[in-house]
Amino acid sequence: MERIYFDNAATTSLDPEVLKAMMPYYTEHFGNPSSIYSYGREARMAIEAARKTVANLLHVKPGEITFTSCGTESSNLAINAAIRDLGCTHIITSTIEHHATLHTVQFLHSMGLCEVSYVNLTHDGHIDVVHLEDLLKSSHQKTLVTLMHANNEVGNLSDIVYIGELCERYDAIFHSDTVQTLAHFLLDLQEVKVHFMSGSAHKFHGPKGSGILFARQGLPIKPILHGGSQERNMRAGTENVAGIVGFAKAFELNMQSHHEDVVYIRSLKNYVIEKLTAAIPDIIFHGDIGERSLYTVLNVGFPVNDRSEMLSINLDIAGICVSGGSACNSGAQGGSHVIKGIYPHESKVPIRFSFSKHNTFEEIDKVVLKISELL
Amino acid sequence: MERIYFDNAATTSLDPEVLKAMMPYYTEHFGNPSSIYSYGREARMAIEAARKTVANLLHVKPGEITFTSCGTESSNLAINAAIRDLGCTHIITSTIEHHATLHTVQFLHSMGLCEVSYVNLTHDGHIDVVHLEDLLKSSHQKTLVTLMHANNEVGNLSDIVYIGELCERYDAIFHSDTVQTLAHFLLDLQEVKVHFMSGSAHKFHGPKGSGILFARQGLPIKPILHGGSQERNMRAGTENVAGIVGFAKAFELNMQSHHEDVVYIRSLKNYVIEKLTAAIPDIIFHGDIGERSLYTVLNVGFPVNDRSEMLSINLDIAGICVSGGSACNSGAQGGSHVIKGIYPHESKVPIRFSFSKHNTFEEIDKVVLKISELL
Repeated sequence: MERIYFDNAATTSLDPEVLKAMMPYYTEHFGNPSSIYSYGREARMAIEAARKTVANLLHVKPGEITFTSCGTESSNLAINAAIRDLGCTHIITSTIEHHATLHTVQFLHSMGLCEVSYVNLTHDGHIDVVHLEDLLKSSHQKTLVTLMHANNEVGNLSDIVYIGELCERYDAIFHSDTVQTLAHFLLDLQEVKVHFMSGSAHKFHGPKGSGILFARQGLPIKPILHGGSQERNMRAGTENVAGIVGFAKAFELNMQSHHEDVVYIRSLKNYVIEKLTAAIPDIIFHGDIGERSLYTVLNVGFPVNDRSEMLSINLDIAGICVSGGSACNSGAQGGSHVIKGIYPHESKVPIRFSFSKHNTFEEIDKVVLKISELL
Repeated sequence: MERIYFDNAATTSLDPEVLKAMMPYYTEHFGNPSSIYSYGREARMAIEAARKTVANLLHVKPGEITFTSCGTESSNLAINAAIRDLGCTHIITSTIEHHATLHTVQFLHSMGLCEVSYVNLTHDGHIDVVHLEDLLKSSHQKTLVTLMHANNEVGNLSDIVYIGELCERYDAIFHSDTVQTLAHFLLDLQEVKVHFMSGSAHKFHGPKGSGILFARQGLPIKPILHGGSQERNMRAGTENVAGIVGFAKAFELNMQSHHEDVVYIRSLKNYVIEKLTAAIPDIIFHGDIGERSLYTVLNVGFPVNDRSEMLSINLDIAGICVSGGSACNSGAQGGSHVIKGIYPHESKVPIRFSFSKHNTFEEIDKVVLKISELL
């Protein structure tokens, strides 16, 4: 059966060019990058070239990039380091962060290591930056602000340039989960005043098992995985060389076609908004669907009834892949914490559509038709 | 230039059959295993099949296997969980553990979370089990024993069956770093009374970036990476599906040819002992080179002089890959903590040779000849 994949915020297909770049590190260049002989040096050079590529694309120094096993590890490292090594005793976050942030924050809080404040959200799920400033102003402790760049379920984009400036003004540490935006947006970290930033390759046609943490130079932080001296003592463990090479290659390729991709994918999103609005009565769109949202993500709320509650399952049967929220949550009971966080009193059936450059208008026509039939 | 790779304890070449098994998860089966539609289910099934394969080979339940990003992460998870979640306030370890263990233990000690005792070593680097029992007997705190199965630099094998029995007798938690022995030895975890065990795929012709932690059923432990509910809430982060598939395939293939491989690789090791002893005067062998050692690892001490100190570099120039110790340490100053731990007063130039089934007697002849020329 032909399948339609509209869940690119969960994961993306691996770009064949990326796989091609990875392959030599699964075949002839198999050395341990810590080994000093030829095989080791080949692997080491590949890692350092990848680090340079990533650093250049973010306008930072190679030493500010640490390769990790995933975005979750990166966020855990940043948040733990802010509390343990940078003296933060107060965390400001939001209720609609990814669980990699939220559960880490809640764990540290449960250990008695920090206080937590949740910033208010606007009616459509944006960070209330006035409230954020109030929280920062009234905080008498060293504070970590951890707020994602784009929400993975509804797609809302935060103004991380402004949030970074606020953090600087109030001497707070700023971590941003940019897992949904790295390689999807131009991120110049000379402009964005983050201290820490998390990214993950499989969200932009790179391999699973490969992430980065950006950590601003000079922060006296320690690893969470202790052992060998890999990653300049910031992340012990033999490096996933092919994964690291794949990260850099995917990032590079994504930025090469960035402008066309943004225009094309945004037009897909606008098209599905138009088609769904015309075809299905009583739907709403969760979050902001305008300029302050991801061009890749659209979260639709369907009126609750027997058919809409079976919608994602019946779409799956028809070969159409969409999600009810974050993939990381899909096994969990109780629905999406993001939708509940923004719309505590609403009851709709949320379906997330998320697009890549490989999707087409024809696919959207088929999906909207199928949804009309099913409802 | 033809190269000879004698550093299989650092990393191994990826088995082409393993790569073949991984490839579908880099191409058509790219789904996020947490997604509930078809692409997700394919990835989920691959992970659960891999878990079952690994569990069967170790004679444990699938739920006792957690996939991680590397052996280092596994050891960090086990040791942290023993202190944080199981109430251990005392760690017994040795000075010749891998840094993944030693640095984790030292970090927890520096945080004031545990006392540390180092078990004595015998003259040839074995764990002094009489001293271990003394330490356990006199410990009035809940104790974690963390001792590796085989030392990665000298190859000494510990009797983890006996150590496990001692731990059981004294109600201690037992973690073993089996990174050098998993898939190299038959490990029946119904016989070996470990609570935790760490393993890494790239040490047995699997991919880098893929490890496991065995954790005995019923231990009330929490993750060190918080976030999504992957790995039954034990390890958040989107799974490295291809890496997990590769882990299981490499483990399975290694066990299929296990008996022949042991006999063949041991004969390579015995041959190099014989040839080196005949060719080079005044060499010694570090650690135990008999039955209580890895059949894959031989650590030779060469008399110190200008030529021996340049030996590994000159061998590299000749296309021969050996190491001065652990790859994870090779950038570090001050020599090997393992050699110093066993031989505090000795000064020899240590060179580790470590073999795989792909090495040959002809390669050994060439290497011994080259060493003779160089010295």
